[in-house]
Amino acid sequence: MELKVKRIDIEAGGMEIILNEEDAKELGVYPQDRVKVRLGGMIVTALVNISQSMIKSGEVGMFIEISESLGARNGDRVRIIPTSRPMSVDFIKKKMHGEKLSKDEIYEIVKDISEDNLSAIELASYITAVYIRGMDMDEVEWTTRAMVNTGETIDFEYTTFDVHSIGGIPGNKYAPVAVPIAASAGLKIPKTSSRAISSAAGTADLMEVLTNVELSVENIRRIVDEVGAILAWGGAVNLAPADDKIVRVEYPLGIDPHSQVLASVMAKKKAVGVDFLVLDIPMGPESKVPDEKTARKYATDFIALGERLGIVVEAAVTYGGQPLGRAIGPALEAREAMRALEGKKVSNSLIEKATGIAGILLEMGNVVDRGKGKDYAKTILKSGKARDKFLEIVNAQGSKGIESSDDVPVGKYKVEVPSPEDGYISYLSNHGLIRIARAAGAPKDKGAGIILNKKKGEKVDKGETLYVIYADSKAKLEEAEKIAKMLKPLRIEGMLLERIPSYQK
Amino acid sequence: MELKVKRIDIEAGGMEIILNEEDAKELGVYPQDRVKVRLGGMIVTALVNISQSMIKSGEVGMFIEISESLGARNGDRVRIIPTSRPMSVDFIKKKMHGEKLSKDEIYEIVKDISEDNLSAIELASYITAVYIRGMDMDEVEWTTRAMVNTGETIDFEYTTFDVHSIGGIPGNKYAPVAVPIAASAGLKIPKTSSRAISSAAGTADLMEVLTNVELSVENIRRIVDEVGAILAWGGAVNLAPADDKIVRVEYPLGIDPHSQVLASVMAKKKAVGVDFLVLDIPMGPESKVPDEKTARKYATDFIALGERLGIVVEAAVTYGGQPLGRAIGPALEAREAMRALEGKKVSNSLIEKATGIAGILLEMGNVVDRGKGKDYAKTILKSGKARDKFLEIVNAQGSKGIESSDDVPVGKYKVEVPSPEDGYISYLSNHGLIRIARAAGAPKDKGAGIILNKKKGEKVDKGETLYVIYADSKAKLEEAEKIAKMLKPLRIEGMLLERIPSYQK
Repeated sequence: MELKVKRIDIEAGGMEIILNEEDAKELGVYPQDRVKVRLGGMIVTALVNISQSMIKSGEVGMFIEISESLGARNGDRVRIIPTSRPMSVDFIKKKMHGEKLSKDEIYEIVKDISEDNLSAIELASYITAVYIRGMDMDEVEWTTRAMVNTGETIDFEYTTFDVHSIGGIPGNKYAPVAVPIAASAGLKIPKTSSRAISSAAGTADLMEVLTNVELSVENIRRIVDEVGAILAWGGAVNLAPADDKIVRVEYPLGIDPHSQVLASVMAKKKAVGVDFLVLDIPMGPESKVPDEKTARKYATDFIALGERLGIVVEAAVTYGGQPLGRAIGPALEAREAMRALEGKKVSNSLIEKATGIAGILLEMGNVVDRGKGKDYAKTILKSGKARDKFLEIVNAQGSKGIESSDDVPVGKYKVEVPSPEDGYISYLSNHGLIRIARAAGAPKDKGAGIILNKKKGEKVDKGETLYVIYADSKAKLEEAEKIAKMLKPLRIEGMLLERIPSYQK
Repeated sequence: MELKVKRIDIEAGGMEIILNEEDAKELGVYPQDRVKVRLGGMIVTALVNISQSMIKSGEVGMFIEISESLGARNGDRVRIIPTSRPMSVDFIKKKMHGEKLSKDEIYEIVKDISEDNLSAIELASYITAVYIRGMDMDEVEWTTRAMVNTGETIDFEYTTFDVHSIGGIPGNKYAPVAVPIAASAGLKIPKTSSRAISSAAGTADLMEVLTNVELSVENIRRIVDEVGAILAWGGAVNLAPADDKIVRVEYPLGIDPHSQVLASVMAKKKAVGVDFLVLDIPMGPESKVPDEKTARKYATDFIALGERLGIVVEAAVTYGGQPLGRAIGPALEAREAMRALEGKKVSNSLIEKATGIAGILLEMGNVVDRGKGKDYAKTILKSGKARDKFLEIVNAQGSKGIESSDDVPVGKYKVEVPSPEDGYISYLSNHGLIRIARAAGAPKDKGAGIILNKKKGEKVDKGETLYVIYADSKAKLEEAEKIAKMLKPLRIEGMLLERIPSYQK
């Protein structure tokens, strides 16, 4: 059937067209069916939407993606040919039935995901089926390799190291401290990280306060060559692109299949050619890893998958019961990380975690013997070499001119939240703190966030400041304060925990 | 956040808006998150889409559904408030985990489906989870009742009867014959049926050749009162509206969870207040019911569900190995059904099935004793009463003026397909015949379709006509002929089935 192009300048999120109901009936196609669309010598596959009114019979509505890909202009005549579903849809059904998928079947699915050949409905069905049925380690390996092979990859001629957190907790800024420590001892660390999705700041958001984080493949290779490490945003490079598309479906469903977590993390690492990886597994009541058993499951599965991929993985289960350090939010965290590098007084938890993880890297890289990594990491940190290395990295990526923690610009509006009573901090809600920091503007407003004056177990007097909220705008500060009053993210237990009445006659 | 309305006159298929990336980030919302949209005193919930270019910061793109529901015009200022996911999403996750859902949880899900509160992603995930995990009979009953209660219902003050086919085969026109037989014996039959989705003609398409099939609730009630039966399109009335939305996701996935088949069929029947139902289960190699075991499973489950809903179900497993009668396509089938009613010579299979099913209805309605229904149905058919009743129904719904089978207009272009050899018909492909009929224009072109001159087991000489393809346009006839040549839907075995060589020394 030949139809006249009517451009619709909206992103559909994939190759999608709109047909008039009559034409669709004549073609025998239904919503979400696939057709080939031919213009001159160009042919693309598109998903069908059907309209009763906005597209007239004889016309085809084309969203931005497809009209750009065909170079179609209004009034062009294109040929529409019904076509069958991609084979992937059959393989998805196989997974629904609980069968193991083959390497080729998984490759087909991942390729179709990365090329936007699957509709949201098909992708949601796949993720649901994988969530329910699970995957064995063969399938996880094949998924990982398919994700790597359908995107860009970087090869280094030398051994490389990396660190990665699964789940994460607020203020988890150990990487900007640990990476320069290890790099200044000679390790090569092409560290890509993510921006915040539902948190207050990702490592990439934090680094962006100080430097450019959007590096090309060429720049990543050059900077690692010359300086030893990067601290950049993984999303700027097309590494394992299927991952982003999968996240887009996992997020609204609020599910995160175990096998897909393994594949997504390791595909990003394999794509940048990582040889040794330290995996940080924060464990705590409000994290993805609530208990020891879950932590062990993640650790052993990541190690096993790493073996299959040629990546040596060591896992570090870390305390995830409260934020790391005292700062939450991009600029506040950047400042705290720089303070740690500068040898200034910061929260012990940050130093311990950063040097602990850097220590494992140093041991994996045979810089020091087993058991000596953490002490050596502390020595490097104290020496100032890590700070120098950090500034080298920042400069190589494109510094914004901030050379010292004192110069980091933080939110100009702030409010102190006082304790309503005397007592001890018995609990901090990670979720509550993140919601307040986000209401204050983080991660978009770089200066927004929270500084915790009190953490778990610390004593507080009535009226003393529990935490300070920072914001770049007054309105958002007020909004954040309102939410803080509602959520009360710090729980205070009085000194008198229980009152035992006197003997009653 | 306050934003300026920019109308986008496209149907999104639900309540959907587009936000600029910056505004979305500021609101802390992601694609597929939900927000409340307030204009004056009106508030609706919408799903978020995000655009980098077509919607500017400060604007909100509104698709047709939401702008109409709010009465929003370009430039109106609306307030956007992030809101949480409906509870149904948690219940869907519960089903993923294999847990049994409660009555209230199922009601919430079905209500959200019927009100378009679930996104395509969430609905796909639900159907996939139900397909994998299944439902027990409690859950099926609750789903059915929820589907009934979220749509229109019709009550009759007297006992009503109905017939329904699951799956179906080409040419399955027994209902226009069986319903008037039973109605002329005094039974009340509010028969709603569907249009073709992937077949060549639904009962509604066939009836539409002769009469109006889009009846209001009031007209359905009045015509059943006065004439005893209708033969109308169920889609014209808002019966169990969740079903249509579920089908929209099942179709592209090519899945049809057993429990959902049960619920969807019975919800439509319960909604029109049916008391006694005959269920036709066509069994055959190319149907939804390939074997006796599957047929029994459907039969017993429908009977059990019927008991819970107060509907007496009897199942009739019928032969589904080839088309019923000789006609396929709306007008050709209407003509064949009328011929059967007029007492003219038609295929025995049609008479046997129609009177068999009418007979069960007559026995259920205590018109005759058990075992005597079919004979009595044949007597009624021969008497001409069923033809009179059929014409009464056609007139009451709004006749198109066709009073006799000879007056039914069929496709004016036709081509005879000859047998390439002498032999017997050993196999007819239902799928192949449907594809040819659809290529010829059915169900949209009412006159298009196929007349089978030969059916299974019949003898054919080389050059003799196997079947005739009809079409309303020459181009489609040629297309259908081409497909026929490719598919060869009738297999002919020579008289010589096997050649046994003479004894070789």
